[in-house]
Amino acid sequence: MVEGLSINLATIREQCGFAEAVDLCLKHGITSIAPWRDQVAKAGLDEAVRIVRSNGIKLTGLCRGGFFPALEAVDRQTAIDDNKRAVDEAAALGADCLVLVVGGLAGNSRDLALARQMVADGIAATLPHARAAGVPLAIEPLHPMYAADRSCVNTLSQALDICEQLGEGVGVAIDVYHVWWDPDLAEQIARAGRLQRILAHHICDWLVPTRDMLTDRGMMGDGVIDLKGIRRMVEAAGFDGAQEVEIFSAENWWKRPADEVIATCVERFHSCCQA
Amino acid sequence: MVEGLSINLATIREQCGFAEAVDLCLKHGITSIAPWRDQVAKAGLDEAVRIVRSNGIKLTGLCRGGFFPALEAVDRQTAIDDNKRAVDEAAALGADCLVLVVGGLAGNSRDLALARQMVADGIAATLPHARAAGVPLAIEPLHPMYAADRSCVNTLSQALDICEQLGEGVGVAIDVYHVWWDPDLAEQIARAGRLQRILAHHICDWLVPTRDMLTDRGMMGDGVIDLKGIRRMVEAAGFDGAQEVEIFSAENWWKRPADEVIATCVERFHSCCQA
Repeated sequence: MVEGLSINLATIREQCGFAEAVDLCLKHGITSIAPWRDQVAKAGLDEAVRIVRSNGIKLTGLCRGGFFPALEAVDRQTAIDDNKRAVDEAAALGADCLVLVVGGLAGNSRDLALARQMVADGIAATLPHARAAGVPLAIEPLHPMYAADRSCVNTLSQALDICEQLGEGVGVAIDVYHVWWDPDLAEQIARAGRLQRILAHHICDWLVPTRDMLTDRGMMGDGVIDLKGIRRMVEAAGFDGAQEVEIFSAENWWKRPADEVIATCVERFHSCCQA
Repeated sequence: MVEGLSINLATIREQCGFAEAVDLCLKHGITSIAPWRDQVAKAGLDEAVRIVRSNGIKLTGLCRGGFFPALEAVDRQTAIDDNKRAVDEAAALGADCLVLVVGGLAGNSRDLALARQMVADGIAATLPHARAAGVPLAIEPLHPMYAADRSCVNTLSQALDICEQLGEGVGVAIDVYHVWWDPDLAEQIARAGRLQRILAHHICDWLVPTRDMLTDRGMMGDGVIDLKGIRRMVEAAGFDGAQEVEIFSAENWWKRPADEVIATCVERFHSCCQA
């Protein structure tokens, strides 16, 4: 058993389907995973639930809900409806949380403040359903380089402001890739702890140079992020849940055998990620 | 005359040397520029000064000093010495400020707090020389995607904290490309105004998608930045200096005739950038 390690299945998404990924994780002693909705859909939700239950698998999250901003009200409602379905899937799978990548600017608008309000409104509209289903919503602040097209929530501070505004049932997913640069990081992780809002801790590394803004994430230890330091902050804030490896790597890790990728995750988790 | 527009010569760096760039700007009625040190060096400092003076050219800045962090004290001193030379060049050219790209992590260190301290120390060590020369130092916060390798000062808030710590003679260069995503932008621009620290306002645009982290900046109007809105904030904060166009664009604008690039800058300045 590898305690405290979860594999986000995006890390081996080019190599493995859901069932194969679970088998591979189990082979390496890993019993926590975080699948994406398209991976679950491809396996079939019922079959995914069966695989999870029969193997005693824990889900540190389901990826992903979000993408709330849109210029037309009907499109915002479509997003909310889809988020409710994502909540139901997370509930069926017994996931710790539904991870939200909240979305960027609405349509061709340049109004970030408007997009941010639409995000808060969309989460608010999804929240009663999530509370009823017992699925916490985890706002994942994304790196500012994604502000236009993926997430207009770009700091932990912003995410926690939304949490405080909306009340219980919503927290944060802290992904080192997105927040490592933040001069306010230590303070905001401590705040997240005081508010008891930390739902997930995602890890990978920031490569220098980074050759692609989306699919050039590094394996832990291959980049510049102070993973041990951030884990210390997260644990000091009261979160002792698993560290979830999420690596998008089109030119490197997605091209390697999944077994090698997972073995490397385990090795680096032990050598680079302990508080 | 095009009032209120300055051309950072990086925008046409692949097409023009210093003298040719000045001639081209003058042809378009532009009398403000911001050259890079390598462009000045190639022309020769004395010749660059002669060209500037004889044509009544105003420099909205000289790019660039900075890159202070280093693991060895001797290397930090080398950086400080080079920054003092940059100050002297800025003084000779009569530049409004010396723009500082402060540098990222020191060597193979993962310690951002350490790098940030080295930056404050490096600026502090350069500042007496800059004050004596009458050259304000302009800290340019760079987008968080450059935190590792170019600038560990990634928000206006951080830059202003350093300004307040170090006293007179140091301010900020507000480049929309680096700060547009910041949820704290309006407040920090207002703060910069109250502190009377705004030394420069750089413009370009953020393209979606962005295909290269360094050299895929957009022409004003081709991306998602609310240029008019940010200019309103900057003017409300008391800065009425020129907007300086700085576009790094390996696959587009650097491949076009410089005359077309400058004509487009003028056109977009009028249509997309007025408060």
